[in-house]
Amino acid sequence: MVGHGCQHARSIIQSMPSFSQAQKAEALLALHHGPKILVLPNAWDCASARLVERAGFPAIATSSAAIASSLGFADGQNIPRQEMLAVVKRIAACVELPVTADLEAGYGNIMETARELAAAGAVGLNLEDIESGQPDLVDIPAQVEKIKTLRSASETMGIRIFINARTDVYLAQIGDPSSRFDRACERLKAYAEAGADCLFIPGIKDEALIRAFVEALKFPVNVLAVAGSPSIPRLQELGVARVSLGSGVARATLGLVDRILAELKQTGSYDAMTAGALPYAEVNALF
Amino acid sequence: MVGHGCQHARSIIQSMPSFSQAQKAEALLALHHGPKILVLPNAWDCASARLVERAGFPAIATSSAAIASSLGFADGQNIPRQEMLAVVKRIAACVELPVTADLEAGYGNIMETARELAAAGAVGLNLEDIESGQPDLVDIPAQVEKIKTLRSASETMGIRIFINARTDVYLAQIGDPSSRFDRACERLKAYAEAGADCLFIPGIKDEALIRAFVEALKFPVNVLAVAGSPSIPRLQELGVARVSLGSGVARATLGLVDRILAELKQTGSYDAMTAGALPYAEVNALF
Repeated sequence: MVGHGCQHARSIIQSMPSFSQAQKAEALLALHHGPKILVLPNAWDCASARLVERAGFPAIATSSAAIASSLGFADGQNIPRQEMLAVVKRIAACVELPVTADLEAGYGNIMETARELAAAGAVGLNLEDIESGQPDLVDIPAQVEKIKTLRSASETMGIRIFINARTDVYLAQIGDPSSRFDRACERLKAYAEAGADCLFIPGIKDEALIRAFVEALKFPVNVLAVAGSPSIPRLQELGVARVSLGSGVARATLGLVDRILAELKQTGSYDAMTAGALPYAEVNALF
Repeated sequence: MVGHGCQHARSIIQSMPSFSQAQKAEALLALHHGPKILVLPNAWDCASARLVERAGFPAIATSSAAIASSLGFADGQNIPRQEMLAVVKRIAACVELPVTADLEAGYGNIMETARELAAAGAVGLNLEDIESGQPDLVDIPAQVEKIKTLRSASETMGIRIFINARTDVYLAQIGDPSSRFDRACERLKAYAEAGADCLFIPGIKDEALIRAFVEALKFPVNVLAVAGSPSIPRLQELGVARVSLGSGVARATLGLVDRILAELKQTGSYDAMTAGALPYAEVNALF
């Protein structure tokens, strides 16, 4: 049994008289500084979010890619901000847990995005430093300005929005491989100084590299778990504060849909569908 | 390789100059009278709908239960009509195929529902004869009136809405078991006479019973495939016109989510997530 900070979060939450949005924000922050690594299996709709909550995870993160495909968009800021945040709001309304939203590069006016994020009931966000369709990353000063705006908006609203600042240096394979570590560190340190709460480096799974980031940044680090990533206990040993799954869970379900469809076509049987499906009554009981 | 009417549908669709909504409605109707059983693996969002389309099925049916849970509602007309139809519209906009929507008991004013269904770009619906929270079925005259209203609305709009009239006699286990066949037949014959295009009897999987319905009704029959149902080739031999999966595919994906979450908690590994997931680029290419 790997701990995921659940008990830590529960002790925080149980000490609260009510689950106000401001309190959920504090709980989410604390989960990044607890004794256990924070594990966030990203959700994309109410059913997946409720399953994550039911399984005892301490917070809900959304996957922008999974929400986009569920709503009919390719990933990469094709989905309008209001459609993304409508799903976030729906999820936040159906769980008790703190919700943090993947908001890609912030969907334009970052002040408006912050206000709408808070209005949706969420208490955190991921902000990446690449704009879809652009060959290179957002300039550091521009990204720093976005983060400062978010932090300032958060203070004005009285809800301590958790800012997970992401660099796409590795995921987007920017520049010469040998330059990426320094380039990512330069960016992430600037993001931390601007007010970020956690630094997200998707695209790394080598243990030595992960450890190097943890040691160089001296700040909560988030990694994306993919095939071949170190296990959660190992990531905890490496000093990682947070592990998330991106669109991995959603893409696993789409793979299953494809296998169900193939079986229908090939043999006309239903085994892939019926083996391991949640019963109808159990799904209804989620709400 | 089981045929699912795909080639039949394609031949209809390919003969059309464009895929107008009226033409899609005619194509959906024809699929119920083709040489092959119509197989509808019900979708609940754009990603699942596009996978069904990509796999070569000839039409998209939605699952009301799966859409409800995705949006945070228990099944049984808890979801408002406009939220259900917003998802139907989104699905219809992202596929080329005819879309038929499960609209439970019709969500109140059936004329408005028909108009909004057509405005959503769909060309068919399921209409059941039980209202959530009621102990018994809707009276036959009231259900007949709903179907007549739908047929009349369809004629006024110039889009031949496909009406799949469902009885819940078996699924809701209404009355003494020995009375159900006659009771269901009485209802379904009245629905056909009122203008229904297909008769849906969820809750039956016994081969003799299925065949008895096909022979008694002499009309296109839809069965719901669940664990233990006859295979698709066998349903075709029994004379069934249409087989659908209800929320089965969606519930299978939720079962997989639960297994992924359990593995994260138990061993901190990702095998259930990574084995068989659709690649990121493949999901994006759906849109």
